[in-house]
Amino acid sequence: MNQQSYYGWWQRDDLCYRHGHLFFAGRSVQALADQFGSPSFVYAAARVQANLERLHGALATAGLADRFSLCYAMKANRFAPLLTFLKQTGLCGIDACSPGEVEHAVSCGFAPAEISFTASSLSSRDLEMLARYDGLFMDCDSLHAIRNWGARKPGTKIGIRVNPAMGIGRAANDKLQYAGEITTKFGIYWEQFAEALEVARNYDLRIAKIHFHTGCGYLTPQLEQLERIIAHCLRFVDAAGEVERVNIGGGLGVPHLASDQPLDLQRWAEVLHRQFAGRGLHLEIEPGDYLVKDAGILLLEKTFVERKKNTVFVGVDAGFNIAPEPACYNLPFQPLPLRDDRTPYAPVTVVGNINEALDVWYENALLPDLTGHTHLALINAGAYSSAMASNHCLRGHFKEFLLF
Amino acid sequence: MNQQSYYGWWQRDDLCYRHGHLFFAGRSVQALADQFGSPSFVYAAARVQANLERLHGALATAGLADRFSLCYAMKANRFAPLLTFLKQTGLCGIDACSPGEVEHAVSCGFAPAEISFTASSLSSRDLEMLARYDGLFMDCDSLHAIRNWGARKPGTKIGIRVNPAMGIGRAANDKLQYAGEITTKFGIYWEQFAEALEVARNYDLRIAKIHFHTGCGYLTPQLEQLERIIAHCLRFVDAAGEVERVNIGGGLGVPHLASDQPLDLQRWAEVLHRQFAGRGLHLEIEPGDYLVKDAGILLLEKTFVERKKNTVFVGVDAGFNIAPEPACYNLPFQPLPLRDDRTPYAPVTVVGNINEALDVWYENALLPDLTGHTHLALINAGAYSSAMASNHCLRGHFKEFLLF
Repeated sequence: MNQQSYYGWWQRDDLCYRHGHLFFAGRSVQALADQFGSPSFVYAAARVQANLERLHGALATAGLADRFSLCYAMKANRFAPLLTFLKQTGLCGIDACSPGEVEHAVSCGFAPAEISFTASSLSSRDLEMLARYDGLFMDCDSLHAIRNWGARKPGTKIGIRVNPAMGIGRAANDKLQYAGEITTKFGIYWEQFAEALEVARNYDLRIAKIHFHTGCGYLTPQLEQLERIIAHCLRFVDAAGEVERVNIGGGLGVPHLASDQPLDLQRWAEVLHRQFAGRGLHLEIEPGDYLVKDAGILLLEKTFVERKKNTVFVGVDAGFNIAPEPACYNLPFQPLPLRDDRTPYAPVTVVGNINEALDVWYENALLPDLTGHTHLALINAGAYSSAMASNHCLRGHFKEFLLF
Repeated sequence: MNQQSYYGWWQRDDLCYRHGHLFFAGRSVQALADQFGSPSFVYAAARVQANLERLHGALATAGLADRFSLCYAMKANRFAPLLTFLKQTGLCGIDACSPGEVEHAVSCGFAPAEISFTASSLSSRDLEMLARYDGLFMDCDSLHAIRNWGARKPGTKIGIRVNPAMGIGRAANDKLQYAGEITTKFGIYWEQFAEALEVARNYDLRIAKIHFHTGCGYLTPQLEQLERIIAHCLRFVDAAGEVERVNIGGGLGVPHLASDQPLDLQRWAEVLHRQFAGRGLHLEIEPGDYLVKDAGILLLEKTFVERKKNTVFVGVDAGFNIAPEPACYNLPFQPLPLRDDRTPYAPVTVVGNINEALDVWYENALLPDLTGHTHLALINAGAYSSAMASNHCLRGHFKEFLLF
């Protein structure tokens, strides 16, 4: 990093300094902070749209035009204005994982037929409620789900979520392993797959989709693993017979650190094209992070700057409970000063206002002297942040804004 | 564990099987589940009272009668009926860590003078709001806080939270380290203590209390560490001059596993007596977990039982988002069947209904055949559970009940 100008790996046209002031989505971030107050999540509709279009473009370029659908994984961010905006783009449907999510997606304008539903551990109440949404497409995650959906909706088409027992991992995130050596609750393993097909036949269900979600947050170095897993999963497709669609889950990551290389989207699309070429399958992809994470920033007010022993702490007015990824998942949100004063940078640790040891936003952030600064902006706060917020310590208050 | 009777380390008079049925707080848990539905947190007032009285008894036996106060750390569980019950026992005040908590404690019946306030990263808004509560006792956690409180309340008594740079840790919980080798945001270190006293003098503030919180969840094996830390902290007391009170934070743990030995409360009280004998100091203790954790159970409905590859999964109708300790902090909640059918036990993994890999309630729980069982009870769900709940995946619904 140049010590004279606060320029970083994260910089792009809609998130950069102009004449020393941080701009996001065409606005001065200081002006947003002054107007909205803190803590506030601010989302850029244009960035979400650009992310959507980049995905569409890469898939089309790879020869998959008209052979894919995007289903936004709404658990990443369910802010209602954002969902309605996504609906209106016409560029994606929804991936939902609870009855409440289905209801909320419909309340924001999506039709049940635009929703792909995949969840585990469904209760009878859940299944009853889901069965009321005609057109909703159900991916069954267990024999239990096949039986119970079959009893309610015999003769319909379903998907089966399978578990390839192979996963994609980013080293720092053992907690985010969905599939791999450890047996997880997700999907149906090869060992039970024949039984699953038989149960489906008993209810006259047609297996129209195979769904496999193999990891999350993957970047270019993980694409080889992705390709191996897809190749491996095709045996489920072959065994199931008349499959029309394959859903490869989400998992497309965005960089969090200067050392992360962005996902090479074209290489990713080519992996998909290579693996599915000539099979006549429609491809579903469930991006969550990729669509919204880098389209959101979190504005926080500076509360203090103080040296404690050997560390300079910068305090802010919200803690990990409103955005758990940095503290709980090792996914840091780089803090940016709202002005680039071109003063020297020094390492500081940005901390929140919760009385818990893990309430650290960013360790050893290089920041300028913050005298006269009122706020910080934390980037990559658009996904798995407000959606996972709690009211711990009664510090759960925040606002959200969608900018056009 | 006896394979013929489901008896465990957790069993006690108010949580045990009677004629094969699990009883809690004098009630059949099945009857509670049938009445309340799921997910429901159920708290036993009598158990909370017994925990309070045990603490009072141990401190009195150790010779500390009339020389201590208990301040319940309300961030552990802020359920309003529980707070009002605690107020009415007359056996404790409140430890609060945010303006919202102060307001909530007052709304439940506590007077500001019964509240000890300790927090970090306070904003100007926070300080303004806190200053309106006359009688509230403020422990300042930074030079910043001393300055800002002093400007608002010159000439008053305050506490100073210090950081002894020594911590108590339970091996599994690195995340819960408040003090120790790593410099944390908490408190004022020895290196800055002289400056803190000078800042206080500038505002005519009197240091009436030294507060040091050194860890959490400690059991008997950690008592020697506790004693060393207290001895070490007395130099802050000596340096501060006219200190009237010492607050040693909370941290008293409860067993989570059969291999945990309960905290030897008498030995703990004797540590305090030995360290503070002859100093004429009033002692404050801030139990959170110890008062309420084992007084709460979480009732969950069974959704399915199914073998996947080499593991039998038992699904339930709620996930880690309504009680994050088992999934996020390695603090398991042992699951209990509501009936002891005296059938053989086998290892199963209890999982929730959230589409995340970490959504596991308990790995390798020994449970009987659950055919005909409708619910499970998870113990130790009384603290840092509902208080930290999020609405992730729109699965945040739960109920709470206080039983008398």
